[in-house]
Amino acid sequence: MRATTIHGANDIRVEEVPDAAVRQPTDAVVRVELACICGSDLWAYRGVAKREGGARIGHEFIGIVEEVGGDVSSVQVGDRVIAPFVWSDGTCAYCAAGLQTSCPEGGFWGSKGSDGGQGEAVRVPHADGTLVRVPSDAEAKLLPAFLSLSDVMGTGHHAAVSAGVGPGSTVAVVGDGAVGLCGVLAAKRLGAERIIAMGRHEDRAAVAKLFGATDQVSVRGEAAVEQIKELTGGLGATSVLECVGTEQSWTTAMDIVRDGGRIGYVGVPHEMPGLPLGKLFGRNINVGGGVAPARAYLPELLADVLAGRIDPSPVFDKTVSLDDVAAGYQAMDERTALKVIVKP
Amino acid sequence: MRATTIHGANDIRVEEVPDAAVRQPTDAVVRVELACICGSDLWAYRGVAKREGGARIGHEFIGIVEEVGGDVSSVQVGDRVIAPFVWSDGTCAYCAAGLQTSCPEGGFWGSKGSDGGQGEAVRVPHADGTLVRVPSDAEAKLLPAFLSLSDVMGTGHHAAVSAGVGPGSTVAVVGDGAVGLCGVLAAKRLGAERIIAMGRHEDRAAVAKLFGATDQVSVRGEAAVEQIKELTGGLGATSVLECVGTEQSWTTAMDIVRDGGRIGYVGVPHEMPGLPLGKLFGRNINVGGGVAPARAYLPELLADVLAGRIDPSPVFDKTVSLDDVAAGYQAMDERTALKVIVKP
Repeated sequence: MRATTIHGANDIRVEEVPDAAVRQPTDAVVRVELACICGSDLWAYRGVAKREGGARIGHEFIGIVEEVGGDVSSVQVGDRVIAPFVWSDGTCAYCAAGLQTSCPEGGFWGSKGSDGGQGEAVRVPHADGTLVRVPSDAEAKLLPAFLSLSDVMGTGHHAAVSAGVGPGSTVAVVGDGAVGLCGVLAAKRLGAERIIAMGRHEDRAAVAKLFGATDQVSVRGEAAVEQIKELTGGLGATSVLECVGTEQSWTTAMDIVRDGGRIGYVGVPHEMPGLPLGKLFGRNINVGGGVAPARAYLPELLADVLAGRIDPSPVFDKTVSLDDVAAGYQAMDERTALKVIVKP
Repeated sequence: MRATTIHGANDIRVEEVPDAAVRQPTDAVVRVELACICGSDLWAYRGVAKREGGARIGHEFIGIVEEVGGDVSSVQVGDRVIAPFVWSDGTCAYCAAGLQTSCPEGGFWGSKGSDGGQGEAVRVPHADGTLVRVPSDAEAKLLPAFLSLSDVMGTGHHAAVSAGVGPGSTVAVVGDGAVGLCGVLAAKRLGAERIIAMGRHEDRAAVAKLFGATDQVSVRGEAAVEQIKELTGGLGATSVLECVGTEQSWTTAMDIVRDGGRIGYVGVPHEMPGLPLGKLFGRNINVGGGVAPARAYLPELLADVLAGRIDPSPVFDKTVSLDDVAAGYQAMDERTALKVIVKP
């Protein structure tokens, strides 16, 4: 079969790799219908996050079950399924607690010995604990929305949950990537009253507005902090969604959060110094989040997508074939695309 | 009047200072019945936290209202009152939200221009927003318990609340000072199922047990981490109360908290490097807390003290007169006393 591999900075290829196959009785093989490229894939693409030459890549996909091992009972051949961005056994204490990202049997797609999502098919370990079945009568136009639940929408939701968003919250979202925009949608879904989106790109601001942003702040740094303070009676936001992961984005997050408020963070930390505890202490700022347990959130978010209550699909603004996956990376790297679907 | 002053490391004196007096119509003057010495006062005593020579000190006291300004309505002359460790106006958005420590009109006892708690009397700014009246028929034996509500018990409670302690929680408490012990009591009060106290002092372990600790870990570092993992099925504690504020205590806290768990911290950070966000990210560890809004917690904790449901007073194990306050500092510094009452 053919799958995407990464050989170094800016070196994305599509190569012939061994066919995905059932190796354990708990495995399934999923034929990929749609995959996509994640902002976090760009860290590898830019050479910041190191990958072994020729490593598989891609961790978001939906598809059709093609084969199942003897112990798999929750999905059958022919089922359409969503794969969260880590697999998990579904039986351990962490899976039971809804923190599948800490499952000792879990792992990331594309890690050594596993298939990546940006390919024709994927061997799925612990299929029962990992895959979520989509009803067979779901409309095909919902496929991109389903795909968003494998990572970005679950991750934006995790930011909002970790930031304590609820009815009446005043929310600010740092980062206008696909995750930040999904954070806006998640905050709206959780009942936030005021949602301040931040970012300079007009097209992204339009998606933020569609998703429920009540205000847009297009300046940066100190000017952004001032503007958000003005919008919030001088106090700042009760909940801040940190969806970037850099020192600058964290500085902004800490400056715009209200004393006693919460920062929910899902931006993978890159080149970050430690958090200044003394600064958080005096102001009682809470910090929560991390790698999102997308699997835990899938059932409730899927129910809302199926019922038409949320539609995260506008975060996708470009589709490429598997052969053209490198062009998809380039478009995201150059910010001519927000988030790219890969169609094998 | 006479009050405690600090002139440098290990240099605590009792000196004649200007009488406490009403200066603003919102002020009250409180004649101190009992004050006490805080673990955080020791940072100044040891010369780690700098103070201006001759600065007042002490921020925990209860007493009798001796005089009130024209605008004070919630307390009267003769009332017994508890003062939380910061004053606050009681009217701003932060006071309304129960975060009186962020009140823009608030301040710390002993800061420049204000009286400290370890003296004969204290001018209380914003008396209506600050002081909490004790029913006139309260028994005198409860005075030490009332005194604990000015800081340590409220602070231990803040650690527990910030760590998300609730019915069924598995809690570990880092630090066996008076705040850590009050954290044990607060965790018990909030319904924790398992409470692991840490520390090597047998007398403190006895108080921890009295307060509700189910387990005591008397080793430190790696050995402590191993023991707590063993006690918790390999997972660690769902809630960790960080009641010290040093790099070592934080390392322990992060090592013993369960993935997805919460660290509630109230130890004033000293010589702390930044928190390692990358380490927290992968394990979804939440961090909350800071300087405790003792004023917010006073009514519910006072009700429990009055009803006999909690009694934090065993954290006090020595009483000195105001003249002997320096001996009280020395006893706490040398750890021959856990927490010292100062009786003017």
